[in-house]
Amino acid sequence: MNILVTNDDGIGAPGIYALAKAMQQIGDVVVMAPLGEQSAVGHALTVSLPLRVTPYHKNDEFFGFAVSGTPADSVKLALRTYLAEHGLPRPDIVVSGINHGRNTAVNVIYSGTVSAATEATVLGVPSIAVSLTSYGPEPDFSAAAEFMRQFVPVVHRQGLPEGTLLNVNVPSVPLSEIEGFTFTRQGRSYWQDTFEKRLDPQQRPYYWLKGDYVLVDHENDIDDVAIRENKISITPLHYDLTDYDFLDEMSDLWPQAL
Amino acid sequence: MNILVTNDDGIGAPGIYALAKAMQQIGDVVVMAPLGEQSAVGHALTVSLPLRVTPYHKNDEFFGFAVSGTPADSVKLALRTYLAEHGLPRPDIVVSGINHGRNTAVNVIYSGTVSAATEATVLGVPSIAVSLTSYGPEPDFSAAAEFMRQFVPVVHRQGLPEGTLLNVNVPSVPLSEIEGFTFTRQGRSYWQDTFEKRLDPQQRPYYWLKGDYVLVDHENDIDDVAIRENKISITPLHYDLTDYDFLDEMSDLWPQAL
Repeated sequence: MNILVTNDDGIGAPGIYALAKAMQQIGDVVVMAPLGEQSAVGHALTVSLPLRVTPYHKNDEFFGFAVSGTPADSVKLALRTYLAEHGLPRPDIVVSGINHGRNTAVNVIYSGTVSAATEATVLGVPSIAVSLTSYGPEPDFSAAAEFMRQFVPVVHRQGLPEGTLLNVNVPSVPLSEIEGFTFTRQGRSYWQDTFEKRLDPQQRPYYWLKGDYVLVDHENDIDDVAIRENKISITPLHYDLTDYDFLDEMSDLWPQAL
Repeated sequence: MNILVTNDDGIGAPGIYALAKAMQQIGDVVVMAPLGEQSAVGHALTVSLPLRVTPYHKNDEFFGFAVSGTPADSVKLALRTYLAEHGLPRPDIVVSGINHGRNTAVNVIYSGTVSAATEATVLGVPSIAVSLTSYGPEPDFSAAAEFMRQFVPVVHRQGLPEGTLLNVNVPSVPLSEIEGFTFTRQGRSYWQDTFEKRLDPQQRPYYWLKGDYVLVDHENDIDDVAIRENKISITPLHYDLTDYDFLDEMSDLWPQAL
């Protein structure tokens, strides 16, 4: 199995290192990821600047290719041009993560981790985003990495429909405390966010985003609820954003001309 | 009607000026938009830098507030903090555009124009993204602006469900040639993109994204097909990305444990 590993926390982050090491146990791995941290970049593409690629070393060994762009840039460049240009195989699967922080509910739309996996799916390669629901300074990625080592071959064997990716969120507890996994839908939890106004030394105002994440769901097929129960949440996502129910309603009930 | 106008081409772009002028004919308008061009930023939020707001003038008149961030930043800052802090009313509707270039099919996931509208919807305010399907250097926004002048009151009257926004794409033809509007779903057209490799003066490689947009759909309820027929395309979108059909399939047919 050929596996492309990417992320949004940057190629130097501990989460992608843990993921790449786990993937090396089950396949041939190429790492291609943003040089710098790219959290909350959404599905951004770099269109006004060119991209550069530099080899990245870790512990005196070649680890992967660092891209001067976003997570979606990294995957698009890899799949469209870079891998073939360098005689590297087209991956059977793309794995993005392990993100430091949950990508559930509304976070999915801001997530660079998910966007990297989405870009792979847009380009026809099955993909999985994986996140650890920890915001602590020294997260332990080992349980998430071990789960992915076991789960990626299952996904490869089962297959994913065209246009569908998986969004995996792993509770931040030791592997022994994880209560299995469950298939979920995207929840409705949200950020009760605000901006803190400060004054710079020239007395000019600036605004910092801050906020608290509010858990609102209770049904046990919801991503955040599964995590609260120490289960690994696996949500199938697609990028057809059409609201079909409301499309039917508009087509029936709205004026058809101005 | 209180209307917040934003965009992703930047507050100085002609598209937002045309939109704001049209909205001033039907309501009280506040403009709050990125200072610089922010195309293809996806649903990015600025989390590592603070935001600044500066008044922006056009033709020697105050036009609106320029934000040193992304489209989603602009809407979040406006709705969460800035409008209330400055005694400005909470908008009844947020309108994002007029984008220079179509936001149909896969473009929806890269679109800053759509992300600004999505952010408003996340924060509970009905919203519409509007784009002109032109890539020429001197686009004529007048037909799109006139349509929005007529359509926004309809949306305000009909109402939108919680979590649903509208994505409007207007063909780049004179108003007299537009064949009405139609309610559509997000199509499957895609970018046949690649990266052009060049060498800088130091002989180091860099990569430019380039590509052609490939129209693949034929059903007349698809966004790009409507536009090809000179109809205005109106697609209801939501940000629940769950693939419910595949979730059912996984729940039935996939292994439930490793």
